Amino acid sequence: MALLVMKFGGTSVADLERIRNVAGHVKRETDAGNACAVVVSAMAGHTNQLIEWTREAATLHDAREYDAVVSAGEQITSGLLAIILQSMGVQARSWQGWQIPVHTNEAHGAARIVEIVPEELKRRLGRGEVAVIAGFQGIGPDNRITTLGRGGSDTSAVAVAAALGADRCDIYTDVDGIYTADPRVVPRAQRLDKISYEEMLEMASLGAKVLQTRSVELAMVHRVRLQVRSSFDPPDAGLPAGADVAASSGTLVCDEDEILEQQIVSGIAYAKDEAKVTLLNVQDKPGVAASVFGPLSEANINVDMIVQSVSEDGKYTDMTFTVQDTDLDNALAVLEQAKDRIGYGEVRGSTDIVKVSVIGIGMRSHAGVAAQMFHALSEKGINIEAISTSEIKISVLIDAAYAELAVRTLHSLYELDGH
Amino acid sequence: MALLVMKFGGTSVADLERIRNVAGHVKRETDAGNACAVVVSAMAGHTNQLIEWTREAATLHDAREYDAVVSAGEQITSGLLAIILQSMGVQARSWQGWQIPVHTNEAHGAARIVEIVPEELKRRLGRGEVAVIAGFQGIGPDNRITTLGRGGSDTSAVAVAAALGADRCDIYTDVDGIYTADPRVVPRAQRLDKISYEEMLEMASLGAKVLQTRSVELAMVHRVRLQVRSSFDPPDAGLPAGADVAASSGTLVCDEDEILEQQIVSGIAYAKDEAKVTLLNVQDKPGVAASVFGPLSEANINVDMIVQSVSEDGKYTDMTFTVQDTDLDNALAVLEQAKDRIGYGEVRGSTDIVKVSVIGIGMRSHAGVAAQMFHALSEKGINIEAISTSEIKISVLIDAAYAELAVRTLHSLYELDGH
Repeated sequence: MALLVMKFGGTSVADLERIRNVAGHVKRETDAGNACAVVVSAMAGHTNQLIEWTREAATLHDAREYDAVVSAGEQITSGLLAIILQSMGVQARSWQGWQIPVHTNEAHGAARIVEIVPEELKRRLGRGEVAVIAGFQGIGPDNRITTLGRGGSDTSAVAVAAALGADRCDIYTDVDGIYTADPRVVPRAQRLDKISYEEMLEMASLGAKVLQTRSVELAMVHRVRLQVRSSFDPPDAGLPAGADVAASSGTLVCDEDEILEQQIVSGIAYAKDEAKVTLLNVQDKPGVAASVFGPLSEANINVDMIVQSVSEDGKYTDMTFTVQDTDLDNALAVLEQAKDRIGYGEVRGSTDIVKVSVIGIGMRSHAGVAAQMFHALSEKGINIEAISTSEIKISVLIDAAYAELAVRTLHSLYELDGH
Repeated sequence: MALLVMKFGGTSVADLERIRNVAGHVKRETDAGNACAVVVSAMAGHTNQLIEWTREAATLHDAREYDAVVSAGEQITSGLLAIILQSMGVQARSWQGWQIPVHTNEAHGAARIVEIVPEELKRRLGRGEVAVIAGFQGIGPDNRITTLGRGGSDTSAVAVAAALGADRCDIYTDVDGIYTADPRVVPRAQRLDKISYEEMLEMASLGAKVLQTRSVELAMVHRVRLQVRSSFDPPDAGLPAGADVAASSGTLVCDEDEILEQQIVSGIAYAKDEAKVTLLNVQDKPGVAASVFGPLSEANINVDMIVQSVSEDGKYTDMTFTVQDTDLDNALAVLEQAKDRIGYGEVRGSTDIVKVSVIGIGMRSHAGVAAQMFHALSEKGINIEAISTSEIKISVLIDAAYAELAVRTLHSLYELDGH
């Protein structure tokens, strides 16, 4: 018998038929003798409707009231799933964040979980009752409902798994696992059986939208084993009764020690939502970087890659960096305003770029991965506009037109193609 | 300065525009220096949608889960109204039943309020903050959300008013007060300025659907003054700033001592949702009534008026009584099953009847009201099939075809017609 946390997102509980399918997955696990805590999101689209209403009510609104309104979506799903489970003969009850309780800080709308009190849940799980938990919500120090921000249900699930000391946290989603690359771009991409937390973190923050970065961080800190798998499979999937379906499909996100044969490169990710800003003829003097990035930081604009070209005359240089594409207009306006203070000739913005990244724990012990990458791209005539690296990742900024070509080239280069 | 409870039903908060209108009413009261607790229902239709989902989930479902799902409607409205009030410069916050808390018994789906803890609400009302309270909900001894059953928001409002010791509880609804008769039937019906609790109770239970019977009972017990008025009036209604609009329109439901000039008859009510059951040739022996009404009571069928004709031969008699029309089929089935035990010749059911009632506190001290009534009806050729009376009410059962004629005739008879 294992203690499992199972998490189902909005598309998995979009209507009653799908909630029934979710209940089938849960029943499979309880039939196999497992104790289950199930974390659910709101029905797909419902949260957006509620958010829209709060916006229509007032553009600037009290985040505490926003939380009261928006958390209603998960409350509804949790009750409906409990009803359906009971109708299938599975003991179950719903839990709101304030009932468990899931204590958070006071940052309404984007709260962080401080503590989950697990005793009562454990007691009931122990006697075979399924806990259906409304995800995305908690209770603040002011005794009011808080929400955890977008994708918060993943975080709820991991936090509940950590508090319960669960054997595994199964994240049911609309894809069947983590792939070596986006299968829409690389048809020969392969599903990974296992991936380390560190690699998953890079994947998540680099555009593979399967898991929220925050939930992966939390899982890494508390060593919660995450299994990513599809909720659209039929619950029994044609396996013999009692078979561990979840463990036999999907991708396990786990400690790197659990991964015996470590690949040098585990996957290729790309992000299209970046924009490039170039400042021409910037005065090459001490403090100029601060004068550029200070105002951007004050305007809450995150800067990612930065490249400064070598100054030819020792007086003027060019500076290129990337921001989220949604921040581009704002960034240009901020720089225009600070033009005199910074001292530059011209500013240019472009969204026709893409960031392609090669990720792998194995890079730590293998030299030459970057050199191979740059060589392969140049052979295809792809110009690299900027580079950034970490211990387990190399990212390059290239012309958006070459995105697919670059991803496929690198996927083959590191021998990730399936057959 | 007065302490007011204001209650707005589902049609009054059906969309954001209407919620904005509600906020206007609240702002008018706070601008006039009043402290306001506002009780809201779910947006019209939303509760029905949620109930429908619980039914689709399972025909027989856990009432505790039903409550978790269905209470979400009021939660949403309370947050939205708080946001809009704040945007109008009115200090406000939302309160869920479990936050106040509104303690109820454990009867999920139809809970009764046990105690409302008013201290924190009072403290905040005292410093000018509007309390926006989700109606219809509370928290049970099991720390789970309860709902009060249909029309529960009226009950919430009266209970909050009682707990706070409010000066008045304004029930905003889609009509502008209590009338001497249904204005659709009697165009010359007049709005009453005041009506006593006892009369309102009879009106409410006899088919005037403006207030829930339960909330009137509660108001009577705790002497909460109820003002029934329209939420569709523009909030300012063209009155000078600070004018007590609520008190100058609508109908006040209050203690009879507050009503100086008591009419003999205050209003004429009618109920079309009754059905008539007739048992022919019932054995006229001791215990026969018990053998008829025992099984009906066990089947949860309420019996209203009962008439037993005088037995001509001392052996057999006929028995007529009324039930809710929705209970008719069930009642006939129960009687069919108990036929041998009761011993009767035949059973007949009909829904072509209507109950018309004359209501007035003044009847207590005036004889002859009933005689006048029977005479007037017989003059119009209307046959009375059954009669029931209380201290302040006379009801007659007549053929449904004569309903409007009877109501208009009695309305004129007791000089209630306006000009």
